[in-house]
Amino acid sequence: MRMLINVAETVVADALRGMAAAHPRLTVDVENRVVVRSDAPVAGRVGIVSGGGSGHEPLHAGFVGPGMLSAACPGEVFTSPVPDQMVRAAAAVDSGQGVLFVVKNYTGDVLNFDMAAELAEDEGIQVAKVLVDDDVAVTDSSFTAGRRGTGATLFVEKIAGAAAEEGAPLERVEALARQVNASSRSFGVALSAVTTPAKGTPTFDLPPGELELGIGIHGEPGRERRPMMTSGEIADFAVDAVLDDLRPTRPVLVLVNGMGATPLLELYGFNAEVQRVLTERGVAVARTLVGNYVTSLDMAGCSVTLCQVDEELLRLWDAPVETPALRWGR
Amino acid sequence: MRMLINVAETVVADALRGMAAAHPRLTVDVENRVVVRSDAPVAGRVGIVSGGGSGHEPLHAGFVGPGMLSAACPGEVFTSPVPDQMVRAAAAVDSGQGVLFVVKNYTGDVLNFDMAAELAEDEGIQVAKVLVDDDVAVTDSSFTAGRRGTGATLFVEKIAGAAAEEGAPLERVEALARQVNASSRSFGVALSAVTTPAKGTPTFDLPPGELELGIGIHGEPGRERRPMMTSGEIADFAVDAVLDDLRPTRPVLVLVNGMGATPLLELYGFNAEVQRVLTERGVAVARTLVGNYVTSLDMAGCSVTLCQVDEELLRLWDAPVETPALRWGR
Repeated sequence: MRMLINVAETVVADALRGMAAAHPRLTVDVENRVVVRSDAPVAGRVGIVSGGGSGHEPLHAGFVGPGMLSAACPGEVFTSPVPDQMVRAAAAVDSGQGVLFVVKNYTGDVLNFDMAAELAEDEGIQVAKVLVDDDVAVTDSSFTAGRRGTGATLFVEKIAGAAAEEGAPLERVEALARQVNASSRSFGVALSAVTTPAKGTPTFDLPPGELELGIGIHGEPGRERRPMMTSGEIADFAVDAVLDDLRPTRPVLVLVNGMGATPLLELYGFNAEVQRVLTERGVAVARTLVGNYVTSLDMAGCSVTLCQVDEELLRLWDAPVETPALRWGR
Repeated sequence: MRMLINVAETVVADALRGMAAAHPRLTVDVENRVVVRSDAPVAGRVGIVSGGGSGHEPLHAGFVGPGMLSAACPGEVFTSPVPDQMVRAAAAVDSGQGVLFVVKNYTGDVLNFDMAAELAEDEGIQVAKVLVDDDVAVTDSSFTAGRRGTGATLFVEKIAGAAAEEGAPLERVEALARQVNASSRSFGVALSAVTTPAKGTPTFDLPPGELELGIGIHGEPGRERRPMMTSGEIADFAVDAVLDDLRPTRPVLVLVNGMGATPLLELYGFNAEVQRVLTERGVAVARTLVGNYVTSLDMAGCSVTLCQVDEELLRLWDAPVETPALRWGR
């Protein structure tokens, strides 16, 4: 086992202690596993709460801060957080303007966020929910009924967070979040399997010299396995899979995302191929983000997410953000 | 070979094309391999130029932008850039105030930057140089006479870049860069070997269940190989190796750096242990940065860099920076 850990049982708590030490503008409740921007609740502002299994860092806790998430609830590795975490997060960030739950479409997350919404409403917190289900690779998978939620989560959290930061009401923030999800599609490729701390060995078998097209972020099976392809061939396959489903008529935001173990040198090279394919297909690119944002522990590989944007979504994407993993000013 | 590439020969050029597409504020000369902040030369400001072999991304090109590097010259993977690149970079950023070369201590880089400095001076550009040699693991190694330059490069480039941005003269920027290097020490650990695109197989043999203490960023040998240790044991070893040499009397900047393939979840957990050791040894922490910044392609592992700071260095560290990989405002 090639892991930089103490024991599998404390991986999430250890990481939260490390986050707390590195990011003084986050309030990290290690025991209850809730990460909150330290100035929450912000008067007059809607709260944005997300969460999910750990192992996808910097998603979600790395996106907590002004202009993006108000709070995040990390579960165990590849395991949904529990409703109690979500209710605590909602209570910590609600200023009376309500809270939006951003939920990736995995069965456990959906059930637990549903239950948390009921519990939070019992406590007098108004809750809206948006389901992220952008992965075009497969419908129904080992963790999901319907499409999986992957890279579009970053777009939803950024744009909903920007709207909330500006003071938009819950109804508007929710509508924007739904629009972003409806305008986004993703496709992922694995070049190696993923190893969880609890198991200590790869969760599936992917021999060297093969790749899996359409992989999920937990190593769920994709569409097909093939002999190794070039970066250009992978870009053709992945971008076409997204475009076949999205059929964008407006400019797109592009996320070229690493799965965790693929070097940034390779991700930038892959981005060159993604941009080539988009140009060939006549799709205009508004903005491009390249890096490891929605990961799967030590899996090698990448995903492409496109989100077609109007002027308002683009303005909100460009709005200032100040989180551990995503930051920019005006 | 589990790489997201076309062919080994085009890896660096492909990545530069991908960087150009993602970062409109950089001017990327793909043919000549020079990355320049697009507003260079900045009137009245010293230019800061660095470079080195590719494979350590985001170092150096990811640190080009206001408040940090003026330009970067990427060489082939793990191979020094050539003097011509460095002279072009210097000419592109010199406003008449001179240029500082930030050089990691590897034989090829040192020779080529020396030659470039002479050529640039022949063209009327005033050049100063700072050598970064922070790695306490070994003296003399496969690529180096003396100590290797690793994580401290980030501290040198950030602090020298902040001083230049404020309008400090070349002499002062150079003195600050030397002070940062003299105040910094690093120690790295590999949990897996590194595979270069050209070779396609691991450059050294590190069996699962073993780690190499004191590894370099090109897979150069370290101090010793041991059976796998816990995150806490590694932190004790690495931090003590740094402290034995640095013996800080002031607060430190902490860089907990991933080698490329170690998940952020593990890096944050490792940071918790690094902070514990520093507390136990009575060392005050001023700031902490956690992430993949000075990498070695797909190597799993981490390094710790400490830089002891006075008020001026801390102020310059905190100054605004706007690059692809490091950004913050006031």
